[in-house]
Amino acid sequence: MSIFTKIIKGEIPSYKIAENDRFYAFLDINPNTKGHTLVVPKKEVNKLFDLDEETYNELMRFSRKIAIAMEKVIPCERIGMAVIGLEVPHVHIHLIPLQAMEDIQFIKKVKLQPDEFETIAKAISENL
Amino acid sequence: MSIFTKIIKGEIPSYKIAENDRFYAFLDINPNTKGHTLVVPKKEVNKLFDLDEETYNELMRFSRKIAIAMEKVIPCERIGMAVIGLEVPHVHIHLIPLQAMEDIQFIKKVKLQPDEFETIAKAISENL
Repeated sequence: MSIFTKIIKGEIPSYKIAENDRFYAFLDINPNTKGHTLVVPKKEVNKLFDLDEETYNELMRFSRKIAIAMEKVIPCERIGMAVIGLEVPHVHIHLIPLQAMEDIQFIKKVKLQPDEFETIAKAISENL
Repeated sequence: MSIFTKIIKGEIPSYKIAENDRFYAFLDINPNTKGHTLVVPKKEVNKLFDLDEETYNELMRFSRKIAIAMEKVIPCERIGMAVIGLEVPHVHIHLIPLQAMEDIQFIKKVKLQPDEFETIAKAISENL
């Protein structure tokens, strides 16, 4: 069972933004920038392009809604998107508020307190 | 007019992979890795999440088809996806054959000869 499946099942706590029967969005606990979000299909598939077409399409639609809510509440130049997946074999889309190229290079991290994570997750959720 | 619009119009040459009435896919001329591809909507919009929902959805569907063809012909661990957009104000999706994290950090580039670009573009195109 992947770490994301454990999060989806509630076995590992997360700062949840949104959930439906197929997808789960939550804050990355080791964010590149404030508001860095992960969107995950509940179905545990390793690679993005191995998802069936319909699940892929719905994942992208769901991610768009999250990103638009993020833009409303997180000060940034724009929301970037990255799908890499070399570390956790369960599809996850990174949605990252960007000011500069380095914000999406996964080389710089920001440290947030629990109450900051909670405030951000709530603000994005309320703007969906 | 963006550099991508000039490419789409043929004013700047490109190694084209696929095109329909709304989208254009071609090889990045300064690739992170061999096979690094850009997918662009012909409509010149700056930010991914400012695209209307239907264009966004179709762009993602079109990109998926390109990525699946890339996987067939480019040896790699998987195809990564990145949308950043801080440099060219015209939506573009990077599809990048990955072996390691650095392949999607835009810090390392590979140099290819024109005949290599042509061979790669043709091989992806033929596997669509």
